[in-house]
Amino acid sequence: MDWFLSVDGGGTKTALLLRRADGQEYRARSGASSIKSVGECAARQNLARGLDELWAASGAGPDSVTHGVFGMSGCDSPEDEAVYRTMIESLGWRPGRYTLCNDALPAFFAAADPPGVVLIAGTGSIAMGVDRQGRTVRAGGWGYGFSDLGSGWWLGCRALEQALLYCDGCRPYRPWLEEVARALGAPCLEQLPGTATTLDRADRVAALASVVLGGEPDPNKDAILARGAAHLAALVQAAAKKLGEQPGAPLRLVLTGGCMRSSRYAALVRQALPAGLQNALVPAGEDPAEGGIRMAKRAAARNG
Amino acid sequence: MDWFLSVDGGGTKTALLLRRADGQEYRARSGASSIKSVGECAARQNLARGLDELWAASGAGPDSVTHGVFGMSGCDSPEDEAVYRTMIESLGWRPGRYTLCNDALPAFFAAADPPGVVLIAGTGSIAMGVDRQGRTVRAGGWGYGFSDLGSGWWLGCRALEQALLYCDGCRPYRPWLEEVARALGAPCLEQLPGTATTLDRADRVAALASVVLGGEPDPNKDAILARGAAHLAALVQAAAKKLGEQPGAPLRLVLTGGCMRSSRYAALVRQALPAGLQNALVPAGEDPAEGGIRMAKRAAARNG
Repeated sequence: MDWFLSVDGGGTKTALLLRRADGQEYRARSGASSIKSVGECAARQNLARGLDELWAASGAGPDSVTHGVFGMSGCDSPEDEAVYRTMIESLGWRPGRYTLCNDALPAFFAAADPPGVVLIAGTGSIAMGVDRQGRTVRAGGWGYGFSDLGSGWWLGCRALEQALLYCDGCRPYRPWLEEVARALGAPCLEQLPGTATTLDRADRVAALASVVLGGEPDPNKDAILARGAAHLAALVQAAAKKLGEQPGAPLRLVLTGGCMRSSRYAALVRQALPAGLQNALVPAGEDPAEGGIRMAKRAAARNG
Repeated sequence: MDWFLSVDGGGTKTALLLRRADGQEYRARSGASSIKSVGECAARQNLARGLDELWAASGAGPDSVTHGVFGMSGCDSPEDEAVYRTMIESLGWRPGRYTLCNDALPAFFAAADPPGVVLIAGTGSIAMGVDRQGRTVRAGGWGYGFSDLGSGWWLGCRALEQALLYCDGCRPYRPWLEEVARALGAPCLEQLPGTATTLDRADRVAALASVVLGGEPDPNKDAILARGAAHLAALVQAAAKKLGEQPGAPLRLVLTGGCMRSSRYAALVRQALPAGLQNALVPAGEDPAEGGIRMAKRAAARNG
């Protein structure tokens, strides 16, 4: 009964951290546990596998964990929450001994105390606001194609769009489009369309974001980044507005996720924000799993 | 040996037409036979089912068909072509006795003789140019997310994007957004985000195009339609340019597919074209399968 657990359940991997008050800790990694990315069956299997690894190493189990935090990607609606609760409780967890939330929330707690807003721009994009009572509000992240604007997926789509429009004869040539073809494994730029028709995974498209975020400067890439940053800044502002005035404590803003590792893109998002939010910016936490441990300790303290 | 066959193999259905020189004909319909929409196994099964229905009704078979035309959605690259050829030949067809092409080509022949350009704007979008020797050039249609701009899928994404941005607090309210929620089966506009996260099929998104194409006028919808029409006009111009000068015969332009049944959207595409292409416009054929029969007869005449 003296362990705390943090699960960072993502669309490509699950990272687990089990820590005792004396600092003793165990870590495990397994496959994706987002029901949106791999389906319920595989998500449960990967989550179970990660937890079993922790139990085997530590000798602990669900009943020896004071509180667990499950930050799960794809936990977006009451229906999703019900699916995750069933999954978690089928693995031996009792209600009240764990917190289920979207994976954006531990990412906030890894960097700051509430009230504040966290923006995650990785494969997808989402902004989440959290007040001191732990209530959350959210903007974005509802799905590729029509939401997740400004994300890695979105940047990758725009890169591919420009390259394909060139191949179709609708746009002039630009050297950076060669990098798009190379990153996707097409034999040459002219053969990109055939390769593009075989794309069926969002993460492969999101991998193209690095072409827009890096490499030689180009006005075309700059325009894409500026649009993406405006989308992300709008999400941050929407979450901050929904959060409302937070009297007596300064708002903290955390920008995190793979895309925000580009200091240039992060600076563009920052510049697109009003001064109040620019000043709220704090450095992102090194390890999102730490946020889950902090949340678990707070929940345990509240539960007495 | 006196039958002609036309197969219109789409992403949602397969329509088959078998016709004899004396006008006797048989029609069949089965499920999708696009390898991109349902995979190779189901595509082959649906194609086989449709053909078997024709053989059972007519007493004909592959060997009694002078020439068959297989217009297959998702036939985009040499790799796709190899997959389709294997599939068709495993059903008893011999090389030289059938023509395999993208389903855009029969849609052109259903309306006009080459040289010309056909634009299909249905779930996806593609423009194809064809010269009098039957050589084809193409623009667009490389995949949802980064191509197929201006299509039903694209219009549906833009509608959903606006509605979700409203739900996130990033856009003011507009009455037409209620229709987006209703069309998607969300209990109300405020609950649209949760419903959107369950969307996993392009055709469900494309069904939202009708909200943008119809209903009460709205400046926001008009802006989406104008952008979509500009994308489609660019595809037409790119295909016409790739086709090059076609001396001695006037170019024909055919606009077809579900989105082009909106006379308003079709008019916007037309207005976005240069005068030369506007004047090339001819009415779309009623039945794409007729185009396949015309192609089959031309091939048979060529083969002697």
